[in-house]
Amino acid sequence: MEEREERFEHMLELVRSTLESGDPARLRGALSEMRGADAADVLAALPEEQHLPLLRAMDRELASDALAMLDEGIARQILSRLGADEIADLLDPLPSDDQTDLINLIPPEHVPAVLRRISREDYEDVAELLKFDEETAGGIMAREILTVRRGLTIQDVIDTIRKEFKDVDHIQSVYVIDANETLLGTIPLVHLLVEDPGRRVEEVMDADPLTVKVDTDQEEVAAVFSRYDLYSLPVVDESGRLAGRITVDDIIDVIEEEANEDITMMAGTGDEEFWERSPLRLSRARLPWLLTGLFGGITSALVMNHFKASIESVLALAFFVPVITAMGGNVGIQSSAIVVRELATGGISIVQTGSKLLRELKVALINGAVIASVLLGIVWLWRGDPKLGLLLGTCMFAIILWATVLGALIPMLLKRVNIDPALATGPFITTFNDILGIVFYLGIATLFLDWIGRGP
Amino acid sequence: MEEREERFEHMLELVRSTLESGDPARLRGALSEMRGADAADVLAALPEEQHLPLLRAMDRELASDALAMLDEGIARQILSRLGADEIADLLDPLPSDDQTDLINLIPPEHVPAVLRRISREDYEDVAELLKFDEETAGGIMAREILTVRRGLTIQDVIDTIRKEFKDVDHIQSVYVIDANETLLGTIPLVHLLVEDPGRRVEEVMDADPLTVKVDTDQEEVAAVFSRYDLYSLPVVDESGRLAGRITVDDIIDVIEEEANEDITMMAGTGDEEFWERSPLRLSRARLPWLLTGLFGGITSALVMNHFKASIESVLALAFFVPVITAMGGNVGIQSSAIVVRELATGGISIVQTGSKLLRELKVALINGAVIASVLLGIVWLWRGDPKLGLLLGTCMFAIILWATVLGALIPMLLKRVNIDPALATGPFITTFNDILGIVFYLGIATLFLDWIGRGP
Repeated sequence: MEEREERFEHMLELVRSTLESGDPARLRGALSEMRGADAADVLAALPEEQHLPLLRAMDRELASDALAMLDEGIARQILSRLGADEIADLLDPLPSDDQTDLINLIPPEHVPAVLRRISREDYEDVAELLKFDEETAGGIMAREILTVRRGLTIQDVIDTIRKEFKDVDHIQSVYVIDANETLLGTIPLVHLLVEDPGRRVEEVMDADPLTVKVDTDQEEVAAVFSRYDLYSLPVVDESGRLAGRITVDDIIDVIEEEANEDITMMAGTGDEEFWERSPLRLSRARLPWLLTGLFGGITSALVMNHFKASIESVLALAFFVPVITAMGGNVGIQSSAIVVRELATGGISIVQTGSKLLRELKVALINGAVIASVLLGIVWLWRGDPKLGLLLGTCMFAIILWATVLGALIPMLLKRVNIDPALATGPFITTFNDILGIVFYLGIATLFLDWIGRGP
Repeated sequence: MEEREERFEHMLELVRSTLESGDPARLRGALSEMRGADAADVLAALPEEQHLPLLRAMDRELASDALAMLDEGIARQILSRLGADEIADLLDPLPSDDQTDLINLIPPEHVPAVLRRISREDYEDVAELLKFDEETAGGIMAREILTVRRGLTIQDVIDTIRKEFKDVDHIQSVYVIDANETLLGTIPLVHLLVEDPGRRVEEVMDADPLTVKVDTDQEEVAAVFSRYDLYSLPVVDESGRLAGRITVDDIIDVIEEEANEDITMMAGTGDEEFWERSPLRLSRARLPWLLTGLFGGITSALVMNHFKASIESVLALAFFVPVITAMGGNVGIQSSAIVVRELATGGISIVQTGSKLLRELKVALINGAVIASVLLGIVWLWRGDPKLGLLLGTCMFAIILWATVLGALIPMLLKRVNIDPALATGPFITTFNDILGIVFYLGIATLFLDWIGRGP
């Protein structure tokens, strides 16, 4: 990472100093070697008041790319300060998916003015894309597609591309359609180079291409890309008509986003953390999870209060409450995190549910036996009497078994009822396990209190 | 997910029944419509004794693809039962990176026999690739590259491709090199379609292409792909000579792998969980983390024992230990998970360290104040006296502050000294926070014991 960071620091310093010295020629020089992603990071690292001057000093392509790659929060903020003409101008070079994403960030009252200013063709694409949920195939696809009819030759297609598509960087495949725009097949663009120019498109196309529907969830789309090593994928509507295409660069964002979602869910920090800078909004995302933990903790205190008499008679019972709760939490997270990721990356199918549960149960039996024995040994040594150790070891073994199995089972159940399985790794479950663990432990201890108490 | 799962179930059932009925023609029919990834999943779902018969019923391309896409554990197991001739035959259609990955799974004593049986050219590529660490650019790149010399025209390049490269699916770019094999520039393959055939390659190439070095870490390579929306990336050695190329489909695997690593680290389950089926090995991966938690718990018990006198005089002090430890753990994970993912997905740079810490501190101040007040209120109501509540609230506020800041700071520090920052989200830190929290809480409580005790 170091080299890339150094290069970036250097770039940032150059921009900062030329912005301050107000030397437009040197600033343009500094910007000329930059790619969109770098320009976006430079913008993000500079104070707000320098955003617009810097953006306006970039040539339009760079400014557009930078805007498309900025964190949502900063892009939203910049867009709120630009005029409709300027926004339309910046949208122009972008593909329709990026245009749509940016339009979603414009203050709603300015959207009509911007839409009136973009080209007719762009307007139609954007209006179509705005209909879809952002987290579906329709929401991430673009409309820039190269379609041809049956009967054309490879040479015809090459001629069309030469005439109409100056910018082929966003195009990976040619789509063959019929008069109803139904997708018949696909031809990877590079195949045009090696196929006999006289052959017809229907002879060389893949006639059974993978597709996704407009309403397919983006996580499922990502799983298809990952599974079949794709570069692009056509999207069709309910009746099989071609609606757009998704390219792999957008899928990388989806995969990172979904992994981040699993992790923030696990950490209990809500969703939109990654571009957020406002402490108030961050606090609002995290507080509900902390409050859950707090009320769980208060419940634990009430449970302990309920068993007050037992604790008073054997004070050491209280000392082991943290180890009981920590272990239930730990093994629960271990098994649920694994199952959640297996579900997310498509590595598990329902047929395997039973075998995964059995696997987790076996692991729990081994780990439970080891941890329980070590705990028994230590407590025995410490107290010079095996009784409390035996009680603790037995409870620990039971808690490890059930927390592991629950940890694996709950995400699978959530998945079946279409709730995000990652919820099962979050503080709700940990808190639930904590309370159950304390009730179980102190309950058993109370039953055997006389027996423990009779020891030395 | 449901539709894909149903199709898969159907496919699996068909293969299973035709395998059992022993009807080779129907089996070949069932296999003919399958892609490599599907065949790999069917293999994984069937019992071991059916792996070889099924693999041998597939045509070679499909069998090769399936083998390359199998989980490492199953692939290793299948390769251990195949002869050197059969393995060499299966390796033949694969690109050099997949060949190398599979050779790494063959029992070491069989490797020389396999290497003797693959083509001269494949042997040279694989021997070169075997030199590199699996988690570096050199370890994930392939050697199938299309290189041309300066001075050639676009038409020359197209002619070369038509003559020599029947299979262009793995090729995304043409690389222009000089006599020393130094990389001069790249041309995306699709540009060949739109460029004037008479122009020379040096006129149309991108003369300042992004590259990575053979020893660049794969996580950094993935960050470059993600940042610049790339489809492929050339890899160069220390002296700038072209060594290979990486395509985006392999990067998707890297991104999923790295996210899984972060998550397993966070959950405390060691590394290689995802293809592992042996409960013993899984248990070995998870036990060290659980033992850490256990010894942490025992330490907590010792700490509580040390403050025995205080607890005996105000028993309720013990009741609130779980809420103190839970909250320290929760806020620590919240801030560390966010910072770890920001570091992993390249969204943070060192310049921002200060501002991220400040952001976390502000969030901690808000959340600490809210949680502490709620806790104070509840304990006051419960006990009819504010003193214990005041003590608990104050401790809670302090613990939330330090756990949040530590949670954000430690991953950044680990990153600087080149240790995986995700370690900071694991059980080590949680355990450490637990103990520190209890010491702090009971220590303060003991200092103010008379004051609390004097209450009603």
